[in-house]
Amino acid sequence: MALIVQKYGGSSVADAEKVKRVAKHIVGNKRKNNELVVVVSAPGEMTDDLLDMAKKITDNRSDREIDMLLSTGEQVSIALLAMAIHEQGEQAISFTGHQVGIVTDTTHTKAKIISINEKKVFNALEKGNIVIIAGFQGVDEHNDITTLGRGGSDTTAVALAAVLKADLCEIYTDVDGVYTADPRIVPNAQKIDTISYDEMLEMASLGAKVMQSRSIEFAKKYDVDVQVRSSFNTNTIGTLITKEVLSMEKVVVRGVTCEMDEAKLSLIGVPDRPGVAAKIFTSLAKVNVGVDMIVQSTGEDGINTISFTVNKSDLKKTMEILNKVAIEIEAKKILADEHIAKISIVGVGMRSHCGIAASMFEALALNKINIDMISTSEIKLSCIVEDLRAHEAVRILHDRFNLADIK
Amino acid sequence: MALIVQKYGGSSVADAEKVKRVAKHIVGNKRKNNELVVVVSAPGEMTDDLLDMAKKITDNRSDREIDMLLSTGEQVSIALLAMAIHEQGEQAISFTGHQVGIVTDTTHTKAKIISINEKKVFNALEKGNIVIIAGFQGVDEHNDITTLGRGGSDTTAVALAAVLKADLCEIYTDVDGVYTADPRIVPNAQKIDTISYDEMLEMASLGAKVMQSRSIEFAKKYDVDVQVRSSFNTNTIGTLITKEVLSMEKVVVRGVTCEMDEAKLSLIGVPDRPGVAAKIFTSLAKVNVGVDMIVQSTGEDGINTISFTVNKSDLKKTMEILNKVAIEIEAKKILADEHIAKISIVGVGMRSHCGIAASMFEALALNKINIDMISTSEIKLSCIVEDLRAHEAVRILHDRFNLADIK
Repeated sequence: MALIVQKYGGSSVADAEKVKRVAKHIVGNKRKNNELVVVVSAPGEMTDDLLDMAKKITDNRSDREIDMLLSTGEQVSIALLAMAIHEQGEQAISFTGHQVGIVTDTTHTKAKIISINEKKVFNALEKGNIVIIAGFQGVDEHNDITTLGRGGSDTTAVALAAVLKADLCEIYTDVDGVYTADPRIVPNAQKIDTISYDEMLEMASLGAKVMQSRSIEFAKKYDVDVQVRSSFNTNTIGTLITKEVLSMEKVVVRGVTCEMDEAKLSLIGVPDRPGVAAKIFTSLAKVNVGVDMIVQSTGEDGINTISFTVNKSDLKKTMEILNKVAIEIEAKKILADEHIAKISIVGVGMRSHCGIAASMFEALALNKINIDMISTSEIKLSCIVEDLRAHEAVRILHDRFNLADIK
Repeated sequence: MALIVQKYGGSSVADAEKVKRVAKHIVGNKRKNNELVVVVSAPGEMTDDLLDMAKKITDNRSDREIDMLLSTGEQVSIALLAMAIHEQGEQAISFTGHQVGIVTDTTHTKAKIISINEKKVFNALEKGNIVIIAGFQGVDEHNDITTLGRGGSDTTAVALAAVLKADLCEIYTDVDGVYTADPRIVPNAQKIDTISYDEMLEMASLGAKVMQSRSIEFAKKYDVDVQVRSSFNTNTIGTLITKEVLSMEKVVVRGVTCEMDEAKLSLIGVPDRPGVAAKIFTSLAKVNVGVDMIVQSTGEDGINTISFTVNKSDLKKTMEILNKVAIEIEAKKILADEHIAKISIVGVGMRSHCGIAASMFEALALNKINIDMISTSEIKLSCIVEDLRAHEAVRILHDRFNLADIK
C-alpha cells in the first residue's frame, strides 16, 4: 500500500462534469490499494472572478481581506470533490487549510508554510477516507486565513507529501510533462522522463507552465519525488522531478528554453566610478523592478557600458528611473530594446563537460545569429538574441545537442 | 456610546454597488459614536448557485460537505464588506464563524449555537474596528464547519447581541417593518412600532417575511431587543420586537394574518375507537408531514369526522398515507380541499379581553363568510375559510378591530 499525495489544478475542477471525472480517477487510484491525500485548487476562473469583485469595490485592497475572500475558492472545490467521490461509492472527507493545521507566517497573499498538523490527516486516512485538502491556503498564528501566492496549491501538495512522508507527490496539470523544448517551436522535442530539481528550476520558462519554482525548491529541500502528469490524459506517465543522480550527468544538455518577455536596457558612456552600478540597481529595487541579466563592459578610456534585462511589463517604470539616474551618474545615453529573446540550455551534465559554451556559440554563429549578451551559471548558459530569430535559435541548439534522441 | 449588532441580508450585498451602499450606511452609524458588530449573509443568489452545483454532482449530498460548501458564501460577503468599509476610511476586520468561536452542535445544515467566544469580538472592537462576522455558520466540537439553516444569519446576530450584551440588534431586511396586515391585501394596514416576542411568533405568516421564528425565540430567551428595518429605506425606524409590557395589552388585536399554503383533509365516518387519531398522525409524522390544525367532531352514532390541515406541498404524500390508513381504521371516505385559507387574529391583549372570538365570528358571519375550522391559542384565533374570500375576510377583521387606527 502506497501513500500518494495528488494535486489537481483549477481547470480540472472547473465544472460539475470535470469534478466527476477527477473523482472517478481518484477512486480508481484508491481501489488500486493506495492511501490518497488530494489537494485541489479553486474551480476554473473563480479566483479571478473574486478578484474582479474586490476590484469593483476598492483599489486599496487589504491583503488580509483578500485572503479571506480568495480562500473560499478552494473550499468550494474540496466540498464538491468530496461529494463526487461519495457519489462513486468511496469515503472522502474535506478539510480547509485551517482544519488540517497548515500554519503559515503572516505574509498575506504570499505566506510561507511553517508547519502542518499531520495527525488530523493520518486519523482521517485510518478511517478509510480519501482526504481532500484545500490548496493555496493556511492560517497564521492569530488564526487569520492566509494564502500562499501563485502556485500555492503545488506547494501545499509538496509540503503535505513531505510531512506525511508520502511515497509520491503527483501534480496533475494542463501539460503532460516537461519537454526538451517547447513542442510548438521544436516539433521533435521529447518528453523528459526524469529531471533533477536543479534542472527543473533552471528551465524556468519551460517549467513555469508546469510548476512554480517555489514548489520545486520546497520539493528539493524535503527530498519529495514529484511526478508531473496530464489531468486530461492520465495514461501518460509524465515527468519525474527528483534528486540528482550520477547517471543524469551523462546527458549534457537536458533542454533548450526560450523567453520572450524581457527587454534590454543599456546605459552608454557611464564614467567608471565606484558605486555607479549600486546606484542604478538600488533605484530599480526600490520600485520593485526585478533585474535578470547584467553585463558591464569597460571601455579603454574608463567609460563603461552597463546593460541589463528587465521584464517587458517593467520597461516604462525602468525608463522613468533611468532618466533620473542617468543624470546623477552622468551617463551619456540610454538605449532600450524590446526586440530580444533569451535562449538558454540547461543540464546538470554541463558541470562536468567542457566546451559546451563554445559549442553553443558556434552553432549560433554558423547560422549568423548574433549574440547580444551572455550569462552563465553552473548548469545553465543563456544568450540574448534578436527576437525574430529566437525560435530558429532554439531549433538549432536542440539539434546541436541531439535532444531529439534523448529521454 | 452604544454597542449595536446589525444584520444585513443577502439582497443587501448582492453586488459591488450594494456592498458599497451598505458600507456607507455602516460607516455613518459608526461615526455617530457607536460600536458596531455587523453580521452578513451570502451575496444574493450565491447559496442557491452553490446548491445547484452540488445537485449536478450528486443527489445524495453529505450534510457535512454541504456546510463546507455553503459557508463560503458568507465568507465572500464579509471580505468584500470589510474592503468597502476600508474604502470609506474606517477600520474594519472580518471573521468567519470559526474565527469568532461560534460553536454549535453537530447537526449539519441546521445546527444550534452552543457558545460564542466574545473575547475576540471585544478585542477587535477595542482596537477601533467595525467587526464583520459571517452569519449562518459555526463550527462543531470537531472543528467541522456547520450552518444554522434558514434564517441562520438572524440567529447569529441575535446570539451575538445576547453574548455581547449589545444595546440593540438591528435586522435590515427587504421590508420596512411588521404591519397590522399584508399591505397588498389591506391598503390601510399600519406599520407596528412595537410588538412582543409572542405576538411576533404567532404572526408567523406576516413575520416570516421579516424574521424566522427561531431567531425570535432566541431573542425572547435572551431578552434581546430586535429592531427590524428596511435596508432600502434606512430613514424609517421599522418595528421593535421586545418583551411584553403591560401597556401592550391595551391593544386587543395586534394584526390579522392570512395563510394560503395549507390544504384541508377530512376522514369521514371514522369509527369512534381509541388510537384512531394516533394511528393517522403517527403515520404522517413518519414521512415528515407536519400537521397544523386538527379538529375532531363526534357524530351521534359513534362515528367521527377527523379534519386537519397540512402544507399544500405535502398533499400528495398525505393522500398516499391516508389511502392506506383509511382501510386500517375503516374510515368511509377521504375528502381533500386545496381551496382554503387560514385567517388569524393575534394580540397579547386577547388574554385579558372577553368576547374577541365572538366578535371575529360575528364579523365574518355578517359578511356571509363561512367558517370551516377553528383553532384557538392564548393570543391567537384562527379560522379556515374559502380561499376566494380570504382577502375579503382579512379586510373585514382589520376593520372590525380598528387596526388602521393603532400603532
